[in-house]
Amino acid sequence: MAPKTKYDTIAEIAKRRGFFWPSFEIYGGMSGFTTYGDLGTKLKRNVESLWKEYFVRKQGFLELEAPVINPERVFEASGHLENFKEYSAECTQCGNSFRADHLIEDKTGLENVEAMGGDSIKSMMVEHKVKCPRCGGALKEPTLILTMFKTEIGATGGEIGYLRPETAQAMFLNYKRGIIHAREKLPFALVQCSKVARNEISPRRGMLRLREFTIMELELFFDPENPKCPWYDDVKDTVMRLYNEEMVEKGVEEPLVLTVEEAVNKKLVLTEWQGYFMGLSQRFIEALGVLVENQRFRAHLPDERAHYSAQTYDHEVKLETWGWTEASGCAYRTNFDLSNHMEASGQNMEVRREDGTRYVPHVVEPSYGLDRLMYITMENSYERRDKRNIMHIPKELAPYQVAVFPIVKKDGIAEKAEEIRDLLQSKGFWVTYDTGGSIGRRYARVDEIGTPLAVVIDYETMEGDTLTIRDRDSWEQVKLSVDDLPSALDAYYKGGKTFLELGEKVVRE
Amino acid sequence: MAPKTKYDTIAEIAKRRGFFWPSFEIYGGMSGFTTYGDLGTKLKRNVESLWKEYFVRKQGFLELEAPVINPERVFEASGHLENFKEYSAECTQCGNSFRADHLIEDKTGLENVEAMGGDSIKSMMVEHKVKCPRCGGALKEPTLILTMFKTEIGATGGEIGYLRPETAQAMFLNYKRGIIHAREKLPFALVQCSKVARNEISPRRGMLRLREFTIMELELFFDPENPKCPWYDDVKDTVMRLYNEEMVEKGVEEPLVLTVEEAVNKKLVLTEWQGYFMGLSQRFIEALGVLVENQRFRAHLPDERAHYSAQTYDHEVKLETWGWTEASGCAYRTNFDLSNHMEASGQNMEVRREDGTRYVPHVVEPSYGLDRLMYITMENSYERRDKRNIMHIPKELAPYQVAVFPIVKKDGIAEKAEEIRDLLQSKGFWVTYDTGGSIGRRYARVDEIGTPLAVVIDYETMEGDTLTIRDRDSWEQVKLSVDDLPSALDAYYKGGKTFLELGEKVVRE
Repeated sequence: MAPKTKYDTIAEIAKRRGFFWPSFEIYGGMSGFTTYGDLGTKLKRNVESLWKEYFVRKQGFLELEAPVINPERVFEASGHLENFKEYSAECTQCGNSFRADHLIEDKTGLENVEAMGGDSIKSMMVEHKVKCPRCGGALKEPTLILTMFKTEIGATGGEIGYLRPETAQAMFLNYKRGIIHAREKLPFALVQCSKVARNEISPRRGMLRLREFTIMELELFFDPENPKCPWYDDVKDTVMRLYNEEMVEKGVEEPLVLTVEEAVNKKLVLTEWQGYFMGLSQRFIEALGVLVENQRFRAHLPDERAHYSAQTYDHEVKLETWGWTEASGCAYRTNFDLSNHMEASGQNMEVRREDGTRYVPHVVEPSYGLDRLMYITMENSYERRDKRNIMHIPKELAPYQVAVFPIVKKDGIAEKAEEIRDLLQSKGFWVTYDTGGSIGRRYARVDEIGTPLAVVIDYETMEGDTLTIRDRDSWEQVKLSVDDLPSALDAYYKGGKTFLELGEKVVRE
Repeated sequence: MAPKTKYDTIAEIAKRRGFFWPSFEIYGGMSGFTTYGDLGTKLKRNVESLWKEYFVRKQGFLELEAPVINPERVFEASGHLENFKEYSAECTQCGNSFRADHLIEDKTGLENVEAMGGDSIKSMMVEHKVKCPRCGGALKEPTLILTMFKTEIGATGGEIGYLRPETAQAMFLNYKRGIIHAREKLPFALVQCSKVARNEISPRRGMLRLREFTIMELELFFDPENPKCPWYDDVKDTVMRLYNEEMVEKGVEEPLVLTVEEAVNKKLVLTEWQGYFMGLSQRFIEALGVLVENQRFRAHLPDERAHYSAQTYDHEVKLETWGWTEASGCAYRTNFDLSNHMEASGQNMEVRREDGTRYVPHVVEPSYGLDRLMYITMENSYERRDKRNIMHIPKELAPYQVAVFPIVKKDGIAEKAEEIRDLLQSKGFWVTYDTGGSIGRRYARVDEIGTPLAVVIDYETMEGDTLTIRDRDSWEQVKLSVDDLPSALDAYYKGGKTFLELGEKVVRE
């Protein structure tokens, strides 16, 4: 049996406590689909909200939500019908199909085989004698397969449609409305956080490669002759670890360590807007709990880049199970997409400068997989201490903010605890309430589900009106009066107060 | 040309300002799909959050998010493959297909023809000589057509899948995990707000009948021998307007006006849980801006009820264009679904009572279409006054909470305004900033996009540090100091203060 990985550990907690688990379990499962439980739904929503704090609210960027199902003509114009394909190898014995590049990676230990192109993939399959991983049978020569889900729009048949594999096309399709709503001023951005689906040939790596998932994408439209970002100063001194194309090509091990501004000035990053979003991205991923030294930016090689991109940097995060893993991509899409849709639709998408010249706006796109970010947050928050699992989920992201525990159910203590639970709920807090089992067992549960604070109601509360708050991270306790509780929680969650500032520290003997 | 309806008015504002518009416009459109702009995405999110305040947070119900794509076996077990069908009539001349019941309704003015059943639909098509609405051609006899989107899971072919037409099945499929996460205690609920798709034959009524939309559903699991709702007292005195099955059957015009408790005691509503959710639903819809006199509950007739339901009440809202319209449904699903999945999957879903007897939990389900609620909110918030459009969107739901306007761009006023915008953004407010055009034109814009407050920075701000806030609803203005602004906005949005309490009223000459 394979040794238990960090991913296995997290996935076990996730399933047992209700963050996420494989879908359709009672019907034997179906790979590439995940179901979020109560904790996962809340954590995912909180990660999304935090992302919007960084990437939408401050800049006043415009949000958008467009359909998952799109008619075929959209993907004809976008190039997806031609390009959204993977090499698939079918087994001559069992009939199962697999992604050829992944089979080669498994056999050889090479990385990023996809980027090597179709001819190399075909020859490497032969060279390395790759067999069917399921039955050991011989595999046919790999062929390119479209990996979008296909359907028909209209119950009685009608037009062919596909589920979108990314959300960006909607921003290009609706660009003409967007620029009106932006009051005809560039730069502006359209942002979408919504579902996408990719009909993966043989999905693996659990939460990292799903067939249905949520993407957060931002398309920033700008004039290539005026590529200034008004918020550039906020991030230009951020120090990044970066591998440009040349370094990736040569397999250089040590990254360049330099500021956003240096990277832009040295033309390692092609535009100020890319630099801005890369710097912002590093801060955002840090806020999920990932240390800067576990982050890096890696350029895509020309063969690896999507058909629309002039430069792409992956923002990678170091995971224990899979090593450096893409958390986000920042692509410079130039005017590729708008020009294509302009030609295919016959609609003019040019903008006029004050001097009368016209241009099709250029686009920079930071893009995030939300499901993956949620997993990254969980893995980075995990600690094993004294035979207990602790999820140090950043307090802004915790599924529940506070637990309320009556020490016992009798003598009116449960009623008092319910009163306090209701009070905190009425103030807008997400509260979990638990009366079952020993207090130690209840502490263990909130540690494992990542609830930062646990409020305990005991006999002192009944007599002297004081209660205890216990900290998930340090296991310290403070005492304070019931009346002070709501403002203490406000100070902790919004006012930047630390745990020990909330009350009088309980000294354990 | 048909006269302009209220829906047309709202849809025109929605498109021009960026709430919503028909999808795929630049490629000729595709009926049944809508795209949300910045304002619509935000309004929809705020309606969803408010719903969760009413239906999730307080009760501590468990959230869930499951895939849109499901394998066929799920819908075999649920009965959808057999039952999720509509009568479709195909034109012998132009080949287009239409929903037969809707064609009959258009021709005869009858309502709810679907509920009359297949034989009646077929005979009424002949009796009323219904022709093709597009070309006038003869129609074939209607046949039942499955209205789920079909696809294949796995890019190289594999298993048949469908996009789910509702989210409830996921709650039944994951019920066994849910009850563990609920710590084995009933009652508990699983709640999902997520995308669904219905492959409508010929969608119409714009936002009210989409092919892809968002549903908010709650499945409450309870012991039929212990059907007590712990929050029943909160709503039992709520007065509803209700038509039970008998009244609907007989076409009674005047509703019963009675409390939730009376309806439950008289067995007009079968369970306390249904009563609870109906009362809560009325309050929630009221919070969207719909007066109680424009709400009613109407029982489904046996023929009209879904295949799983023992009793369903539609919560209807009166709309100007379409009259009484379903905003929500509250169904008593008994143990139909869990029993079916128990049989199909072979998994035991019974719960053991303290006395040792076993039972399959019963289910009550309130269900909402989020897109529809967003439209209902918009229609109810609309006022035409002095040739202006005003959207009185409830302040908790407004896409932007505050606008910031420099009266002019010169003399440092724009810089001061930007400073105030940044300050408010840093405090967590959603701010829209506008420097263009006359102040009157800017006021008109925020009235139309439903921003409750507009802060104006002028020469007095530069000299004496006071600014003006202007109210969207009354067009009144108050003055206050810059320093007091954040706490005034907090008091308005969270502290229940009214507009005129925020500062010194400006008396217009």
